[in-house]
Amino acid sequence: MLVNGTPYRTVWAEGATVKLIDQTALPHTFRIATSPTAATTAQAIKTMVVRGAGAIGATAGFAMAQAVREAAAAKPSWTREPADFAALVSQGAGLVRNTRPTAQNLFYAVQRVLAAATSPDAGSPASTRSPALAAAAAAREAQKIADEDAAACQQIGQVGSQLFKQSTRMLTHCNAGWLAFVDWGSALSPVYAAKRAGKQAFVYADETRPRSQGARLTAWELAHEGIPHALIPDTAAGHFLRKDVDLVIVGADRIAANGDVANKIGTSMVALAAED
Amino acid sequence: MLVNGTPYRTVWAEGATVKLIDQTALPHTFRIATSPTAATTAQAIKTMVVRGAGAIGATAGFAMAQAVREAAAAKPSWTREPADFAALVSQGAGLVRNTRPTAQNLFYAVQRVLAAATSPDAGSPASTRSPALAAAAAAREAQKIADEDAAACQQIGQVGSQLFKQSTRMLTHCNAGWLAFVDWGSALSPVYAAKRAGKQAFVYADETRPRSQGARLTAWELAHEGIPHALIPDTAAGHFLRKDVDLVIVGADRIAANGDVANKIGTSMVALAAED
Repeated sequence: MLVNGTPYRTVWAEGATVKLIDQTALPHTFRIATSPTAATTAQAIKTMVVRGAGAIGATAGFAMAQAVREAAAAKPSWTREPADFAALVSQGAGLVRNTRPTAQNLFYAVQRVLAAATSPDAGSPASTRSPALAAAAAAREAQKIADEDAAACQQIGQVGSQLFKQSTRMLTHCNAGWLAFVDWGSALSPVYAAKRAGKQAFVYADETRPRSQGARLTAWELAHEGIPHALIPDTAAGHFLRKDVDLVIVGADRIAANGDVANKIGTSMVALAAED
Repeated sequence: MLVNGTPYRTVWAEGATVKLIDQTALPHTFRIATSPTAATTAQAIKTMVVRGAGAIGATAGFAMAQAVREAAAAKPSWTREPADFAALVSQGAGLVRNTRPTAQNLFYAVQRVLAAATSPDAGSPASTRSPALAAAAAAREAQKIADEDAAACQQIGQVGSQLFKQSTRMLTHCNAGWLAFVDWGSALSPVYAAKRAGKQAFVYADETRPRSQGARLTAWELAHEGIPHALIPDTAAGHFLRKDVDLVIVGADRIAANGDVANKIGTSMVALAAED
């Protein structure tokens, strides 16, 4: 999406380096964090430089690819290379998995990049798998995870935008916009797609205490996308739902098979008020 | 109630002066604001040095008594005294009424003190009512309003405390404690009465954005009363209601004849979550 006219993703790789929009600095400062190693990228996840299930997943994939690349490049003197490589890769996976307990995307992404790095090369016996080829495969897989996330979110937007009429008034909780994913977002993607289809929505973004992702991130995103919006206290959601809200869209950390949704604290109160 | 071992009311009169706990300084600083004139007391209401329906009502009564006293003492040279007195009193009532639109107690209190000041002296024809006697009657009426508020709140505590068992876990929204009244409070008075009856409650106080009366005032009150409590974000009320809350008590700006309650923004969301 665009920030001051320049297209950005929330997280991306440039060679061995991972770059991220530093979400701890928003909304007052827009800056790109540069993470040179798997260890620093793990720190970025841990300290919430990046947050949001999809964005965490993509970042974890890139971190895992960094770990494989670092393992392939490591040349300790006391052991033979192949054994060392596997141990270093496994140690890297542990490092990335240990950053945040809630985002399941993180564990999926680590597993996918790990599988890509450790599966035998096509047409070769397993024993000929080289660390260099493993690193290249890991990097490709991490990029694929990021691209799939962006494409899935764009799809959510296409489907969700059909719920919008001209001037629909929507309410959202927390940030499930493009800062929470690689691009487009989940809950906000339909608003962005609706705008591109000529339908201008108005969005109530609630503050989302205690970390205020609505105030700090959603309002910032909406402003940069040119979506008219109002930032409201969490306490006021019920009032505006009764007044003029047509539609509530929120993100979901997980959705169970029976339809139960796990999401940011306060979502159930908004749901009850919306049902009322 | 007690602050560091000393008994205080939220607002009281000392001669011509009105004294108030400065609620804009809490919770970090406990200080008593001294208001020498009707004009400054009106400012105290306007700038939320005092807030809460009962406390505003009592303060408005004291402000009105100050206005009557000032009118009685005024000696302009260009007009005869009696006509001037009535005009000054009426002007004072306008000043106090103009401070805050929502607290109906304010308008009741101004009206009561005004009536006390302008009714004829007992056993005398109306024309003999002296400004000095009017000022004394106004001061008595203002004191009566404050005393009635404290007594009513104490009664609320007696009745409400019967809802408490040993270790009841209660949730409240905003501040309807003794800072919102002259003494005791409404929603919190039952907790204080229960404690005196040997029943120790635990209170969840939600933050109550956007002005954070729960965080700034309720948590401060509970700490000074020795009530175990937790300050939670407004978004977390639903979670704790599902987890272990036995009882929700909130204040009310007004209660309609049909039972409808008007109260601080967010109350309806807490009510829906409590019902769920």
